[in-house]
Amino acid sequence: MKNKPVCYVPERIIPEVYSGTPTFLGLPKISNKEELENFDIVTMGVPWEGICTWGSYTDCELSTKTIRSASARYGGYMLDYDLDIFDHFTGGDYGDCIVQNGNYDVTFNGIKEKFGEIMDAGKFPIVFGGDHSISNPLIEVFAKKYNGKIGVIHFDAHMDNMPSFGDEKLARCSPFYRVYEQENIDAKNIVHIGVRGPRNHPDALGNAKKFGATVIPGMDIKLNGWKQAIERAIEVASDGTDAIYVTVCSDILDIANNPGGPPDPCGMTSFELAMMLHECGKAKTEAFDYVEIYPLEDKANVSSHTAVWMTLHLLAGVTKRKFNL
Amino acid sequence: MKNKPVCYVPERIIPEVYSGTPTFLGLPKISNKEELENFDIVTMGVPWEGICTWGSYTDCELSTKTIRSASARYGGYMLDYDLDIFDHFTGGDYGDCIVQNGNYDVTFNGIKEKFGEIMDAGKFPIVFGGDHSISNPLIEVFAKKYNGKIGVIHFDAHMDNMPSFGDEKLARCSPFYRVYEQENIDAKNIVHIGVRGPRNHPDALGNAKKFGATVIPGMDIKLNGWKQAIERAIEVASDGTDAIYVTVCSDILDIANNPGGPPDPCGMTSFELAMMLHECGKAKTEAFDYVEIYPLEDKANVSSHTAVWMTLHLLAGVTKRKFNL
Amino acid sequence: MKNKPVCYVPERIIPEVYSGTPTFLGLPKISNKEELENFDIVTMGVPWEGICTWGSYTDCELSTKTIRSASARYGGYMLDYDLDIFDHFTGGDYGDCIVQNGNYDVTFNGIKEKFGEIMDAGKFPIVFGGDHSISNPLIEVFAKKYNGKIGVIHFDAHMDNMPSFGDEKLARCSPFYRVYEQENIDAKNIVHIGVRGPRNHPDALGNAKKFGATVIPGMDIKLNGWKQAIERAIEVASDGTDAIYVTVCSDILDIANNPGGPPDPCGMTSFELAMMLHECGKAKTEAFDYVEIYPLEDKANVSSHTAVWMTLHLLAGVTKRKFNL
Amino acid sequence: MKNKPVCYVPERIIPEVYSGTPTFLGLPKISNKEELENFDIVTMGVPWEGICTWGSYTDCELSTKTIRSASARYGGYMLDYDLDIFDHFTGGDYGDCIVQNGNYDVTFNGIKEKFGEIMDAGKFPIVFGGDHSISNPLIEVFAKKYNGKIGVIHFDAHMDNMPSFGDEKLARCSPFYRVYEQENIDAKNIVHIGVRGPRNHPDALGNAKKFGATVIPGMDIKLNGWKQAIERAIEVASDGTDAIYVTVCSDILDIANNPGGPPDPCGMTSFELAMMLHECGKAKTEAFDYVEIYPLEDKANVSSHTAVWMTLHLLAGVTKRKFNL
Amino acid sequence: MKNKPVCYVPERIIPEVYSGTPTFLGLPKISNKEELENFDIVTMGVPWEGICTWGSYTDCELSTKTIRSASARYGGYMLDYDLDIFDHFTGGDYGDCIVQNGNYDVTFNGIKEKFGEIMDAGKFPIVFGGDHSISNPLIEVFAKKYNGKIGVIHFDAHMDNMPSFGDEKLARCSPFYRVYEQENIDAKNIVHIGVRGPRNHPDALGNAKKFGATVIPGMDIKLNGWKQAIERAIEVASDGTDAIYVTVCSDILDIANNPGGPPDPCGMTSFELAMMLHECGKAKTEAFDYVEIYPLEDKANVSSHTAVWMTLHLLAGVTKRKFNL
Amino acid sequence: MKNKPVCYVPERIIPEVYSGTPTFLGLPKISNKEELENFDIVTMGVPWEGICTWGSYTDCELSTKTIRSASARYGGYMLDYDLDIFDHFTGGDYGDCIVQNGNYDVTFNGIKEKFGEIMDAGKFPIVFGGDHSISNPLIEVFAKKYNGKIGVIHFDAHMDNMPSFGDEKLARCSPFYRVYEQENIDAKNIVHIGVRGPRNHPDALGNAKKFGATVIPGMDIKLNGWKQAIERAIEVASDGTDAIYVTVCSDILDIANNPGGPPDPCGMTSFELAMMLHECGKAKTEAFDYVEIYPLEDKANVSSHTAVWMTLHLLAGVTKRKFNL
Repeated sequence: MKNKPVCYVPERIIPEVYSGTPTFLGLPKISNKEELENFDIVTMGVPWEGICTWGSYTDCELSTKTIRSASARYGGYMLDYDLDIFDHFTGGDYGDCIVQNGNYDVTFNGIKEKFGEIMDAGKFPIVFGGDHSISNPLIEVFAKKYNGKIGVIHFDAHMDNMPSFGDEKLARCSPFYRVYEQENIDAKNIVHIGVRGPRNHPDALGNAKKFGATVIPGMDIKLNGWKQAIERAIEVASDGTDAIYVTVCSDILDIANNPGGPPDPCGMTSFELAMMLHECGKAKTEAFDYVEIYPLEDKANVSSHTAVWMTLHLLAGVTKRKFNL
Repeated sequence: MKNKPVCYVPERIIPEVYSGTPTFLGLPKISNKEELENFDIVTMGVPWEGICTWGSYTDCELSTKTIRSASARYGGYMLDYDLDIFDHFTGGDYGDCIVQNGNYDVTFNGIKEKFGEIMDAGKFPIVFGGDHSISNPLIEVFAKKYNGKIGVIHFDAHMDNMPSFGDEKLARCSPFYRVYEQENIDAKNIVHIGVRGPRNHPDALGNAKKFGATVIPGMDIKLNGWKQAIERAIEVASDGTDAIYVTVCSDILDIANNPGGPPDPCGMTSFELAMMLHECGKAKTEAFDYVEIYPLEDKANVSSHTAVWMTLHLLAGVTKRKFNL
Repeated sequence: MKNKPVCYVPERIIPEVYSGTPTFLGLPKISNKEELENFDIVTMGVPWEGICTWGSYTDCELSTKTIRSASARYGGYMLDYDLDIFDHFTGGDYGDCIVQNGNYDVTFNGIKEKFGEIMDAGKFPIVFGGDHSISNPLIEVFAKKYNGKIGVIHFDAHMDNMPSFGDEKLARCSPFYRVYEQENIDAKNIVHIGVRGPRNHPDALGNAKKFGATVIPGMDIKLNGWKQAIERAIEVASDGTDAIYVTVCSDILDIANNPGGPPDPCGMTSFELAMMLHECGKAKTEAFDYVEIYPLEDKANVSSHTAVWMTLHLLAGVTKRKFNL
Repeated sequence: MKNKPVCYVPERIIPEVYSGTPTFLGLPKISNKEELENFDIVTMGVPWEGICTWGSYTDCELSTKTIRSASARYGGYMLDYDLDIFDHFTGGDYGDCIVQNGNYDVTFNGIKEKFGEIMDAGKFPIVFGGDHSISNPLIEVFAKKYNGKIGVIHFDAHMDNMPSFGDEKLARCSPFYRVYEQENIDAKNIVHIGVRGPRNHPDALGNAKKFGATVIPGMDIKLNGWKQAIERAIEVASDGTDAIYVTVCSDILDIANNPGGPPDPCGMTSFELAMMLHECGKAKTEAFDYVEIYPLEDKANVSSHTAVWMTLHLLAGVTKRKFNL
Repeated sequence: MKNKPVCYVPERIIPEVYSGTPTFLGLPKISNKEELENFDIVTMGVPWEGICTWGSYTDCELSTKTIRSASARYGGYMLDYDLDIFDHFTGGDYGDCIVQNGNYDVTFNGIKEKFGEIMDAGKFPIVFGGDHSISNPLIEVFAKKYNGKIGVIHFDAHMDNMPSFGDEKLARCSPFYRVYEQENIDAKNIVHIGVRGPRNHPDALGNAKKFGATVIPGMDIKLNGWKQAIERAIEVASDGTDAIYVTVCSDILDIANNPGGPPDPCGMTSFELAMMLHECGKAKTEAFDYVEIYPLEDKANVSSHTAVWMTLHLLAGVTKRKFNL
Repeated sequence: MKNKPVCYVPERIIPEVYSGTPTFLGLPKISNKEELENFDIVTMGVPWEGICTWGSYTDCELSTKTIRSASARYGGYMLDYDLDIFDHFTGGDYGDCIVQNGNYDVTFNGIKEKFGEIMDAGKFPIVFGGDHSISNPLIEVFAKKYNGKIGVIHFDAHMDNMPSFGDEKLARCSPFYRVYEQENIDAKNIVHIGVRGPRNHPDALGNAKKFGATVIPGMDIKLNGWKQAIERAIEVASDGTDAIYVTVCSDILDIANNPGGPPDPCGMTSFELAMMLHECGKAKTEAFDYVEIYPLEDKANVSSHTAVWMTLHLLAGVTKRKFNL
C-alpha cells in the first residue's frame, strides 16, 4: 500500500484516529462507510465496560486508546517471516463505535452497526475491546454473513460461558453461552483454548459439554506443546465451516506476559500465543478481536504492545494464506 | 429524603449507577426520564475527551467514574455548616450520556438530549466531565430555559476562549468563545475567575474584552482575598439575569491541591475554592459543572475527592438560599 | 545528650529499633523497662489497624516503620527556633508493642502495658499509630497517672466520637466517645480542633455537645487564623487540669500536605499545624500521639516526614517551657 | 462443605478474618481453638518481618493481608483437574498469630502456640508469612507431632542455611541450619530445590553436605524438566518418613512471575511450580507454608494471586491422594 | 522575537535541544558560541549529581531534561502581567555542559567554560541543575564579570553553608561556605531566605553570622508575609553591588508544591515564591539558577512545571525593569 | 582476591564508585589509569542517551547507576556452577566516562579514551550503557587491539544496522552498520542473535546480507532451543578470529523478564540468555557490554538485577575457560 507503516523513519507522519490517539499502526483514518472500499483490513474499537464481575478489574474501555498508542511504534514488516503485511494488503482505522456507560442496548447496537458496515464491505476486521461481552454481538454479525457456517476459536483463561451473572445475560462472563444459543451457529465448531485455574465456575466444563463445544485446557498446551493444541483447535473450528472467528482475552497469557490483564498465572507466553495465532491466520480466520486489557495497572502499556504483536503475527498468517507465501 | 446518604453507617447500601461505579453519594439511580420527577438535584456524567490541546494530558473521560467512586465515602451532612443537604432536598444520579470517541456531533447531541431532560423537568443539575468543551452545549441548553437571561461564572486557570484550535471550533480551549457568540446570551454577564500563568494565549484577555466579559485573575484572589473576588463575580453574573451557571475546571486549584489536574501551580487552595463556590450557591446558581480531572496521574483519586467536597460546599449554599437557612 | 542526633554528619551511626528500621531520629534503642531511666523523651509504636470504616484506606500499621525511616534524615536542632531539643533532653526509642491483627484485646493490653511503663517511669511519651482507636487506651493510662485531671486536644478532620461502628465500640471512629465516658475524665476539657467536611456523621456535633466537649472547626482556623484557635483550645484543655494530652490524626492536614493520609481537602497546611503544636508544647502538654498515615499511597513518604517535623515543633515548645527558653 | 467458595456468584458473601481483610477464599472464620474441630484445612498468618538481610526488601509482614485479599477472587474448583477441593474438604481461616516487631521470642511463641493448636486438632495447616524465619518454629512443632519422622521440601532461590546472620541465629537466611540441628529430624530427608544465582553464600552447598541434605539446583529443573526433579525430591523426603512439610519462598519463581518478590531471575514459571506442588500434594505432604511476598513493589498484587493458585494446586493434589481421585 | 513561543498553536514546531528533549519553551537551539550573539536570554543545563548527603534523594541530574519537557507546554506570555517576555527579548537554549559522574573537576570545568561563554557574550543566563553544588562555580564566574560587586539571594530550606561534607568541600551542602570564602565577594551581600526545619545543622546560623551573611527564615515569611521579606532581601543584596545572582533550591517550596523535591514541609507555596522572584527580577538580578528537582518521585513532573513558572515570573520582572513597563 | 564480594555478610563494607552509587558488586574503586594494573576484570559506565528513535523510551543514561545499585546485593559465587569468580580473578570499578548530552563527539571520545585505557592495560572490560550507539566506538577500540581479528555476537530484538536515523549515522539504530563498515573488521564474523518482531525495518535482513553478517532470529531460538543457536553463533564469531566481543541489548529478553526495557514480547527468558552468555564466556569472549535499560518504568530495578546475573553467568564461563575448570 502507499505510505505503508515502516518503523525507524523519523519523518513518518502518523495520523490520529481521534485527538491524542494515533490510528492503528499509523494506517489511514477511515472517516465514513464509503471509504471502507479502499482498505482490505479494517480496525475498529469498542471502548466499553459493562458489568464488572470482579471489582478491582475495571477501565478496560481505555484500551482502544492504549493499543493504538503502542502500535505507532511498529511497521507491518515482520522480520520473523521476512514478510511485510502491507506489501500485500491495504489497511485503515475506522475509529470507535458509539457507547453509553451502563447501557448494553445503545452499545451493542453501536457495535453491530459499525461492525456490520465492515462486514458488508467484505473487509477483514480487527476489533479491540472493551470487555469480552462484545464478542457476542460481533459473532452474531459475523455468523449472519456466513449463514452460520462459522467456527470460533476462543483463547482465554476463563470459559466465559456462564448462563448469566446474576440476572444479567450480557455480562462479560457469559458471551459464549449466548453464542452457544445463537440459532444459526453450531456449537460443535467452538473451541475454548487455554482455560485454567480457580477463576472458573464448577459448571464451566459442563456448559461446554452440554452444547458440544470443545475445551483444550491451558495445562494441555503447557504439557504437550502449542503446536498439537492449535492443530486440534483449527480442525474442530474448520470442520464443515466457511470461516473462523478468533477471539482473544488477554488473560490467555500469563500475568507475567500481560501485566495489564487479569492476574492469572500459569498461562501462555507471548511467543506461544503468537505461534498459535499465526496458525489461525494461515487457516481460514476471517475476523479477529482482542479484549480485556486494563491499562491502569500497566503504566508502560506492555499488554497493549503485546496486543499489537499478536495481531501482526495473526495477520502475517493471513497474508501467507491469501497470497500463497 | 428517605435513605439519605450518611457516612459511618456500615450497613449502608450504595447503589451502582452502572456496574463497578456507585451512584454519586450513593443516591438513588434514575433509570429514565419519568423518574426525574422524584428528585430535586440530578447528577449526570459526560465521559468525553475531544481534541487534546496538550498531548500528555489525556483520559479525563474516566473521571465520571472516579468522582462517583470517591463520593461513596461521604454523606450530605456538612459539619462546617451543621447542615444536611438531604434533609431539604432529594437527589439522584441519572448516569452518563451517549458518546463516541472522536465524534463531537454524536456526543454533543448526547449531552444536549440528556441535559435537556433534566432542565425540562426543572431540576438542579450537577454535571461531571469530561473536558471543558462540554460546557458549550450545556450552557446553550441552560440559556434556552432562561431565555438567555443568565450569568456564567467560570473558574479556571485558563480563559478557554480561543476562537478555535487549528480548525476545530469545539475544542476544549474554545467553549467560551462559542458562548460569547451565542445569540441569546449577553457576554457582559460572563466572568472568568482564577485565570493565571503561561498557559494562556496572548489573545485571551483581548477576546474577553471584545465581547465584554469580565476577568478576575488568580493573582487578584491571592493578593486581595477570595471574598472580594467572588462578590464582584457574583455581582457581574447577577446583573439583570435570572440564573447563574457555574463551571469549574479543576485547574483553578493549585496542582498541589489537584494532583489529577493539569500541572498549573500558583492557584487556589481547596478551601478558597470551597468558600467561593459556597457563595455562588447562596447566590442564584441553578446549574453546575466540574470538568477536567485526569485520574491516571492521581492514583489515590485526590482530585475526585476534592470535586465531591467542592460540589457539596456549593450545594450547601444552594440549600441555605432555597430554605432561608 | 551524648551522641545527639545531628544531620549532615556522614559518619553518624544510626541504630536500628528492629532490623530494617532506624530508631526515631537515630536516638538510642531502649531494650527494656529498666533502661527507661536514662531518657526524658521516649518513643513507642503501635502497628495496629483495627476496624476499617472506609475500605480503601488500609495499612496504617506500616507507619511505625515509615515515620522512623523518615526521621533518620533529621537532627533535633530546629533552626526556626535556634534551639536543639537534645541539648536539653535525652531521648530514646522503646520499639513497638505487641499486636495481633483482628484482636483488640491482645493489642490494647499490649498498648497499655508498654505505655504504662513509660508513664510509670515519668517520661514524656511520643506514640506513633496505627489507627486512631489507640488513643482510647493511651488516654486511659494517661488519665490514671494524673488522677483524671487532664485535658485533651484532638487535631483531626473528623470527630471520631461515634458511639460505635456497627457493634464495635473500639473502632477508629469511636475513641473519643469512649474517652467521654471514662469516669475520671471531665469531657469539658476535651477539644476537637480542625474538624471539617462531609466525612462527619450528622450526630458528631451533638455527641460532643452532650458531653460538653468543645469543637473548633477547621473553617474557623482558616477564616480567623491558627493563633486564636489554638489559644482557645489550650485554654479549654488547661482549665483546672494538670496535664494535656495531644493527639493528631494526620488528616487535620490538607491532603495536599499529607498525601499518605485520608483524602480530606480544605485542611491545614503543615505550617499551620506546626505552629499550633508548638503552642501546645509551650502549654502543659505531657504526652503526644500521631496516627493514621497510610504509606502505600505515598511512595516518597511525605506524610511520614511531615509527622517528624510536627513532632519536633511540639518538642521544641516543650523544651522552651521546661527550660524557660 | 456448606457455602463452599465458588466464583462468579454475585450474591456470594465473603466473611472478613479481620476488618478490611477477607478470609482465605472466603472460607468461614475460625474464632477460637474449639471451632477448629469443624474444619479439615486451616489457614493462619504470620505477619512478621525479622532481621532484614538486604535492606531494600522489607514489608513482607503485609502479605498475610494481600494474599487473603487476592484469594477472594477464587473458588476451590480447579478446572484443570475438574475437581472441587471443597466438595471433599471443609476449610476455615484461623487469623494471624501474635507478633511484636523486633522481638523473635514473642513472635515465635505466638507462632508455636497457634500452629500447635492446629496440629493438636489434627488439621491440615496452610501458613502464610512473613519472612522465611518462621519455617523454623513451624517445622519444630510439625516434627514433634510426627516424632521427627518427617521430610522437608524447601522451594527457594536461596539455601537459607547460614549458621547465623551476624550474631542472629533466627534470621531469615538461617532457618534450615536450625532445622538441620533439630534433634529429632534427620537432615537426610531435607531437600532444597530451585536454588540458584549469586545471592547464595559460598558455604551454602557445604552446609547442606555437612548435614546430609539434598540440593536440586534451579538449573537442573530448567535443563532437565520439573518432573524428574520433583520425583527425586519426593523420593528423598519420603524415605522412611511419615509426613512431608512443604515450604515455599516466593523467589523460587522467576521475578517475572513474582513481581512482589526478591528480584531473582532465571527461576521457575508459575506453571512449573504449580506442577511440582501438585505432585507434593499427591505425595504425603501434611503441612504447607508460603513466605516472602513484598506487596509494596507489586501494586496489582500479582504475587499474592500466584500464592493462591500455588496453594490450590497443592491442595488439589492432597484431595486426589486422600480421596483416591 | 521571530517565532516566539506561544501556546495553543497546534502547528507550532518545537525544536529539540538534543534528541527526545525540547529546547526550553521551544526557543531556538544555540549550537555554538558564535550563535550566542543572537539571543538576550540563554538557557543551559548542568545534569550533575555529586555527593549525596541523604541517600534516598538521587537522580537530580535528570531534571535538565524534565524541566525542558515541561516547558514546551508554555509560551512567554504571562496573562498575570499582560506581558509577553519575548515581545521584548530574544531567547535560546545552549544545551548542557560536559559532566562526568563522580568527577567534580571535569564537571566544574564544564560548567565554568559554558557559563563563561554566556557571561562573556553579555547574556542573561538561566541555569538548570543538577544539585546545589553547581552554584559555587556559577557564582565564581558571575562575580568575576562584575569584579565581585554582586549580591546573592539564595532561596532554600537549607543553609547549604557547611564547611564540608566529611572531607568533600564541594558537596551540595557546602556551596555557600565556598562562596563566603571567595575573595572578591563580600558575604554581607548574601541572603539566605526561606530556611527552616530539622534538616539544618546546628552550625548553620553561626556560619552565616561569622561571614556576615543575612538569614531570613521561612517562618518569618509565613508569619509576616512574603512582601516585607523579599524587600529586605533585595535591600541587602543590592547594597553597594552592581548585580544580583538569584539561586533557588526547589525545597524552598513546601513539598506539597514540589513533589519532586526533598520532603520538606512548612515551606512556601508556589504563589509566594513566584511573587518573590518577580520582585527579584524587577531588582537588579542578572543571573538565575534553579536546582535540585528529583523526577523519579514525581511522575507528572509537577516540580518541573513549577520551575518553568517560577522562571517566567522572574523573567517578567526582568522585562519590566529593562523596558520600564 | 582480597575482600572478595560475598553476600550475607552484614559487616561487609561496600565502596562507592561515586556518591550514592556503590561500585559494581562492591569491588574496589579504580581511581586512575595506574591502578588498572591491580585488576583482571574492569567495569566502566557510559551514562549516555543520544538520538531517541522512539519517543517514550528515554533515560537509559540512568542505568549505570541502577545496575551498580542492584549489584551490591550479590557476591561472585555462583552456586549454579559451585564456582567463585573472585577466587580466580581480581576485579574493580573504573567509574563512568565523560559525556555531554546531545554531543556525540565529546561522548564518543570519552568512551574511547577510558575504554582504551582498559584495553591498553590488557584487562577484561565490562561496560554498562547507555544506549546501543556506544558499541560502535567500543568495538572500534577493541578491534584495534586485535588487529581486526575479532568476532561480534550481538544479542538484541533489533538489528540496529540501519545506515542512519534521518541524517544521524551514530544513532542507536545504526551501530552495526558502522561496525560493518569498519575497515579492519570482517562482517562475516558478526552474528545478530535473538532479533524478532515488528520493530525491525524491512531493510534489516538485507543490510546484514549485503555485508555478510549472520542472523539467528529469536524464533529459531524459541523453536529449536538456545543450545544449537549459541553454538552456531560462536562458530561464526570464532572462525579465524582471536577474540569475541559480546554485546547485549536488554530487549533480547522478553519484556516480561525485562520490565525496564523496550516493550518487546516473544523474547528470551533470563535463563535462556544466561545459558547463552555462559557459553560465550567459555568461548573466546574478551569484552562485554550490556545496554538499554530504562529505570523509570521499573521501580524495583528488575532489569538491573537481571543485568548483574547475566554478567556473572558470562564471567563464570570466562573463569572456566581461563582456569580450565
